[in-house]
Amino acid sequence: MINLAVFGVGRIGHVHAINASGLGSVRIKYLVDPIAGEHQAHLAARLGAESVSADTVFSDSSIDGVIIASSTDTHAELLLKAAKSGKAIFCEKPVSLNFATVEAVTNAVNASGVSCLLAFQRRYDPDFRFVRDRVLSGDAGTLEHIVMHTRDPSPPSLAYIGHSGGMFRDQAIHDFDMARYLLGEEITTVYAVGNCLIDKAFGDAGDIDTAMVTLTSASGRFVQMINCRRAPFGYDQRLEVLCSKEVLYVENRPQRGVTIADVSGFRGSPPMNYFIERFAAAYRDEMAAFVDMIETGQVPLAGIRDGLEAQRIAEAAIVSIQSGMPIHIGPDWRP
Amino acid sequence: MINLAVFGVGRIGHVHAINASGLGSVRIKYLVDPIAGEHQAHLAARLGAESVSADTVFSDSSIDGVIIASSTDTHAELLLKAAKSGKAIFCEKPVSLNFATVEAVTNAVNASGVSCLLAFQRRYDPDFRFVRDRVLSGDAGTLEHIVMHTRDPSPPSLAYIGHSGGMFRDQAIHDFDMARYLLGEEITTVYAVGNCLIDKAFGDAGDIDTAMVTLTSASGRFVQMINCRRAPFGYDQRLEVLCSKEVLYVENRPQRGVTIADVSGFRGSPPMNYFIERFAAAYRDEMAAFVDMIETGQVPLAGIRDGLEAQRIAEAAIVSIQSGMPIHIGPDWRP
Amino acid sequence: MINLAVFGVGRIGHVHAINASGLGSVRIKYLVDPIAGEHQAHLAARLGAESVSADTVFSDSSIDGVIIASSTDTHAELLLKAAKSGKAIFCEKPVSLNFATVEAVTNAVNASGVSCLLAFQRRYDPDFRFVRDRVLSGDAGTLEHIVMHTRDPSPPSLAYIGHSGGMFRDQAIHDFDMARYLLGEEITTVYAVGNCLIDKAFGDAGDIDTAMVTLTSASGRFVQMINCRRAPFGYDQRLEVLCSKEVLYVENRPQRGVTIADVSGFRGSPPMNYFIERFAAAYRDEMAAFVDMIETGQVPLAGIRDGLEAQRIAEAAIVSIQSGMPIHIGPDWRP
Amino acid sequence: MINLAVFGVGRIGHVHAINASGLGSVRIKYLVDPIAGEHQAHLAARLGAESVSADTVFSDSSIDGVIIASSTDTHAELLLKAAKSGKAIFCEKPVSLNFATVEAVTNAVNASGVSCLLAFQRRYDPDFRFVRDRVLSGDAGTLEHIVMHTRDPSPPSLAYIGHSGGMFRDQAIHDFDMARYLLGEEITTVYAVGNCLIDKAFGDAGDIDTAMVTLTSASGRFVQMINCRRAPFGYDQRLEVLCSKEVLYVENRPQRGVTIADVSGFRGSPPMNYFIERFAAAYRDEMAAFVDMIETGQVPLAGIRDGLEAQRIAEAAIVSIQSGMPIHIGPDWRP
Repeated sequence: MINLAVFGVGRIGHVHAINASGLGSVRIKYLVDPIAGEHQAHLAARLGAESVSADTVFSDSSIDGVIIASSTDTHAELLLKAAKSGKAIFCEKPVSLNFATVEAVTNAVNASGVSCLLAFQRRYDPDFRFVRDRVLSGDAGTLEHIVMHTRDPSPPSLAYIGHSGGMFRDQAIHDFDMARYLLGEEITTVYAVGNCLIDKAFGDAGDIDTAMVTLTSASGRFVQMINCRRAPFGYDQRLEVLCSKEVLYVENRPQRGVTIADVSGFRGSPPMNYFIERFAAAYRDEMAAFVDMIETGQVPLAGIRDGLEAQRIAEAAIVSIQSGMPIHIGPDWRP
Repeated sequence: MINLAVFGVGRIGHVHAINASGLGSVRIKYLVDPIAGEHQAHLAARLGAESVSADTVFSDSSIDGVIIASSTDTHAELLLKAAKSGKAIFCEKPVSLNFATVEAVTNAVNASGVSCLLAFQRRYDPDFRFVRDRVLSGDAGTLEHIVMHTRDPSPPSLAYIGHSGGMFRDQAIHDFDMARYLLGEEITTVYAVGNCLIDKAFGDAGDIDTAMVTLTSASGRFVQMINCRRAPFGYDQRLEVLCSKEVLYVENRPQRGVTIADVSGFRGSPPMNYFIERFAAAYRDEMAAFVDMIETGQVPLAGIRDGLEAQRIAEAAIVSIQSGMPIHIGPDWRP
Repeated sequence: MINLAVFGVGRIGHVHAINASGLGSVRIKYLVDPIAGEHQAHLAARLGAESVSADTVFSDSSIDGVIIASSTDTHAELLLKAAKSGKAIFCEKPVSLNFATVEAVTNAVNASGVSCLLAFQRRYDPDFRFVRDRVLSGDAGTLEHIVMHTRDPSPPSLAYIGHSGGMFRDQAIHDFDMARYLLGEEITTVYAVGNCLIDKAFGDAGDIDTAMVTLTSASGRFVQMINCRRAPFGYDQRLEVLCSKEVLYVENRPQRGVTIADVSGFRGSPPMNYFIERFAAAYRDEMAAFVDMIETGQVPLAGIRDGLEAQRIAEAAIVSIQSGMPIHIGPDWRP
Repeated sequence: MINLAVFGVGRIGHVHAINASGLGSVRIKYLVDPIAGEHQAHLAARLGAESVSADTVFSDSSIDGVIIASSTDTHAELLLKAAKSGKAIFCEKPVSLNFATVEAVTNAVNASGVSCLLAFQRRYDPDFRFVRDRVLSGDAGTLEHIVMHTRDPSPPSLAYIGHSGGMFRDQAIHDFDMARYLLGEEITTVYAVGNCLIDKAFGDAGDIDTAMVTLTSASGRFVQMINCRRAPFGYDQRLEVLCSKEVLYVENRPQRGVTIADVSGFRGSPPMNYFIERFAAAYRDEMAAFVDMIETGQVPLAGIRDGLEAQRIAEAAIVSIQSGMPIHIGPDWRP
């Protein structure tokens, strides 16, 4: 039996706790969320877990791993404590909004020898995995370029924007990760344009709502990204991978399998709304991978260094917009 | 150079005349349409043709073939005259609304040795041909059953209904023909239900507006047909052929290649409206086949006996609705 | 807290038990399956349930309801016992392969006053519900006719065929139910054709593998059904409802949201395979409806009389194939 | 009657000549193509035209307009002669591979007062027009950003590459034009990356085979382009316009309306192959617009200045790749 503690039982922490508890060999022993109140109590009752403070978790030697799904500003400290106390780590991205902190924590976790799964759940999505596997199999030929669309169904609140780190660190970071993952090599040049085309208020909050990014990889292959805080039809999350023999597309998943036809044409359903629904299978599979990592040592699809490298690209994109220039990056580049 | 005469220059006759004139080796010498007036004069000028009476056509030995696209009640007489005068025949369906006449004319044309293309243009449509060819190639496996949808974009006028011969002889006859053509064998049992679900006025005119038909072939395979005088979205003309290894679908062809996405979902274009647009390529190809028949003796995809056999099924469907019983047919069955 | 007992923990009973246990207010107290052995022990441990005999269930006054998912030949007796002991009933279709038994049990259950949900899960599927709701709302206009496709991914074993009651009672019964449900009225004429086009061995077992059925409703509206034991691409489960303003389609749900494009075209994913996956949401929702029926008296979407009426149509379809005639049915018709 | 002369009767000149001759009021009087030989003679016979030298055309006062479809290196001189002799001009893009020449010719044509349609045929395509009209109507809301895909079905020959001016001047110029056209304003920043990912031989010829371009407009809106000399499935020509209320997509047009379903899924047809087929309607409509321009003075959808501005963006894209920097352009920018 694997004993786990969950930090943060908001929307995504709740999903992770339920998914972990559904795995036969797992016991959610502790929940840690100073502000969740009644919701935490309810979830604790359902899971047979106890609501405790962080210290209890790290001093309990029966705890095998921690799930860090609390607010971003708590991640770094929890990662360091988990590394120090030898608990296996499942951590939501990003590690920190401060790149130097990300780098320091990454180094510390790596030095500790503790295994860590960084929650780029898209790597675990069956559709994205199918594409990755097909590229690796060679059936599609050589990967030449990638186009990605990420558009939220509607803009977040200004309050959220304020502590999100901005669109690149918050939303586009999944695309930066997917670019590296599918290419199988590092990005060396980043060019980004961005603007507030939906609502000027995002600009007052220091952010943008629309961006286009071009990435060039070490071997000279290309990635284009369209990132936006709104699509009129809902959540737009697509991938197009051009290889020499095939083009592979991850399409949006519709809410319904119903088409309505009338004089205006054939109306298909809007896509699943929103990431909790769209990536339900990915969240289940990544939690199973976390438990598998603890039980068998199986290396997860994304580790803590992947968080660092994706964030390096995000930082470069921010600098690119500020400077109007393409940014050349490498392992020593820092914002 | 092939010299042709066109009988009837209404909508479909106009299409045939233009298509024939676009073939390098063809000259449209005569147009015959007692009621077309100015339209005929205009078309004659465009084609360099002469407007004449039927007698002129049949007594002119330079005429190689006739295109019969006049009203249905004139077909039988023109077919007999063409057979007698040795002109190759292109004839719009149906030969006659009277089955005994169809049978007599079919026999006379066959006895004359004149070659005849009966205008079941769907056999010449590139999509339907693709399906037919794939079935014949064996790649799809053994054909087991067929489902066909034919729905007009909107009901015809009551005036049209009055001399159309009814939905089976007028519209569904193309499906009866396609069933025989794809199965490669004769139909032996016909069961049909029909009603006026769109407008009771069609019933007063002795017709129906909605029908469903089940056909059983000599070897025990099945066809289902949905026939209707209206689809809310426009012209619905589809085919589904289940074979042991593949299902082959002929889909509707959209008017536009534009999708509009908004909060209600993804809206694709309505289908092409109507048969003149949908089957434009088929009309061109069947006219080329007619000229090829004259020039090289190439047997066309549909001959006059195909008109007789499709109409036999239509007659049986009418009797089935009247009697409420399945009708067993064979080469000797007559309504 | 609602206490339930589950009869039969095979594939579908397992799904029902898990779904019921996931509802906050439910306790699965008993499992009853004389042949499930280790599988039952494992499930009992997971759910905190006890493996007992049927008698224990019916004599325990704390049991609020029973889930009957055992083999068809046990349904009638369990239904009668549940009715007698006043337990709410969730019962898999069919009630019995013998129509007289279905009728007798239906009458007994109705007379007992016990509430009963008959598991036509398709009524609870979100896509089918969406269509039903849209028809009821009037937005689609008047329903005129229906086309349904049900094709299994591959034929069942001959052993299964032997005790299945045949394709109409086993598979097509869901379509008969959906026809009644969407039309909101009874079927009065049934015409069916059937044959063994996939494998003659099904014929030796007294069954067919391919059927086409035409239903006429009391008000003269039509339904066409295509039923088959195999589609080359997998599970084919579709609905098309033509109304005066809209056509509503329930499409197949793809396994993956990935398209592969190469020189042969654009390849979309096969459909979900098979009903357990396709109707996962429907099974969850119908179990929630069962608990809701117990807790609040909410009438379920399908009751025991719906099983009787769907089976009457199935029996008529069988007689139609045997006799080659359309069968006229009403509340007094029996096979 | 409008008298026209056609310069160049290669693939596209042939299309234009046939389309023009199909318009009721047009007579193709002359064909001018020093190297077309027998093909020209055949076409001349079909159209009742005469094969002459360029001088004959410009000294014949009955000629109302000229269609310039000869090789690119002849465009500038023919444009100047047409402007001088007062003939209305239909000219294939580009005006010249040399930007200074484009500018000089544009100024000369504008100064002459001769009307000129520059053949950006995509503006006349019914699908692209539908999108443009919908944006202009306001129904879609405010246009925010655009994504365009242009991929050829297979790379051109190295010989073609050598005199094509490179991928930006030859292929992507249509996308640069469409960007300006849909945005309704000028582009001010151009960033491009490019490489030879398909075949290094294109690099030896001084060209690239894969490019990604980001455009920023005067008001700060964005366009992303994917340009490639090959798509594994054929000709890929798509547009996606995100507006505040709707996203509008121009999809590829399939060759066939046939889907094949088997165990590997649902296979749709490859797209139309190639631009001659895909833009057949556009070519007809732009020729009708040319005749309309002559007859009624109707301003065409694209004039000679549009050629200049699209080419300015192409030149900036080339400089961007060479320098690795975004290029800021305006009316005074020159390469």
